[in-house]
Amino acid sequence: MIYKLWYWPSVQGRGEFIRLAMEAGDIAYRDCARDRGQDALLERMSRIYSRQPFAPPFLELDGFAIAQVANILMYLGERHDLAPAPMADRLWLNQLQLTVADMVAEVHNVHHPVAAGAYYHEQKDEAARTAKQFREQRMPTFLRHFEAATTATDGAWVIDDRWTYIDTSLFQLIEGLRYMFPKRMATLEPDLPGLVRIHDQVAELPRIKAYLASDRRIAFNQDGLFRHYPELDAA
Amino acid sequence: MIYKLWYWPSVQGRGEFIRLAMEAGDIAYRDCARDRGQDALLERMSRIYSRQPFAPPFLELDGFAIAQVANILMYLGERHDLAPAPMADRLWLNQLQLTVADMVAEVHNVHHPVAAGAYYHEQKDEAARTAKQFREQRMPTFLRHFEAATTATDGAWVIDDRWTYIDTSLFQLIEGLRYMFPKRMATLEPDLPGLVRIHDQVAELPRIKAYLASDRRIAFNQDGLFRHYPELDAA
Repeated sequence: MIYKLWYWPSVQGRGEFIRLAMEAGDIAYRDCARDRGQDALLERMSRIYSRQPFAPPFLELDGFAIAQVANILMYLGERHDLAPAPMADRLWLNQLQLTVADMVAEVHNVHHPVAAGAYYHEQKDEAARTAKQFREQRMPTFLRHFEAATTATDGAWVIDDRWTYIDTSLFQLIEGLRYMFPKRMATLEPDLPGLVRIHDQVAELPRIKAYLASDRRIAFNQDGLFRHYPELDAA
Repeated sequence: MIYKLWYWPSVQGRGEFIRLAMEAGDIAYRDCARDRGQDALLERMSRIYSRQPFAPPFLELDGFAIAQVANILMYLGERHDLAPAPMADRLWLNQLQLTVADMVAEVHNVHHPVAAGAYYHEQKDEAARTAKQFREQRMPTFLRHFEAATTATDGAWVIDDRWTYIDTSLFQLIEGLRYMFPKRMATLEPDLPGLVRIHDQVAELPRIKAYLASDRRIAFNQDGLFRHYPELDAA
């Protein structure tokens, strides 16, 4: 079976967490809206089965759809052996992924603090204030939490000795934050050696290396989740 | 075993989703910080095992802790038979709970749009703008999604013929929104008959009825997630 992945076709966004896990895990998928366009995505989302996604990304299987990034990753992890078997490890993995999701929501809130449905330039003043507290308080708090997670194991990866989807997710988080806040990340990274190590190990996985070099990897841009507005960055 | 639940002792907040499921499911727990205070909570969180919670609520078990509301509920659901067995149903349940979590994060953002670490009165102007778009766009979008979920089954509850934790979570969402936005909810509720029915059915569960009448149920207040600032409400 080839999975049908549906996500906005011109951005990495939340869909990228799914793409990376599927690429690293050699799971066959079609990135449907990249072939068929955004209208096809909206059409599919509104008509799919009786249990509808609230928003992309969603994964279409035989007879149903799964939405919510952490939910999709949990499914793929169990189905395709990208997750550990012991219950305590699975809960820890899901817990970390949900904390990644929380940070990602706050990242989006930096450039859209008061109106998700309006443009950045309509809320620039509010965004400047949001960015300041995100850079100074939230970024170090979240990143130190993930750093501690990388040292909670003796293995080479976040959970023991093989990569799971939390490693690919932390890779993407670091990638996105470096794009969005290059100055701030340069200041913070010396205190995050575990996270940087995980990032680099993921980048060296042969399938991820091939993916990043392919045209399947969409470049960061100013329509996505991680956006580089220089006025929102500072050391 | 009696679970140890740790959450801020003076608010319903995110912890209430856990409390309601445990109360309805007759699962024995101690609400530790209500006995021992907030300092004990912070102390416990920073010292607990090597796999630490990012934030309360967390549930302490034999030898480890589980954090993140949806993660805790998934564990309790599987362990205590508060969730369906088929995989597609479990994924749907988790997906809905994660969408509740997304809405709850946006609810918090209404009164703290630009600085989670500062007071409401320091961001009142931004909050007014955030509230307007939340009331007009996000509330109907989220609530119609949950309404559709209540009609995606033939059973009396969101998933088939018995309550699961998504029913108690939707109850709490309606309770909170009625407290925070009484005027707006009065306008929206006539189009949400399924959600109101689920809310009322949960309120009539004998164990929930007893809980709501007990002093274990903390009253809504202006320190919690759902806050009633009259200036942020409108029909």
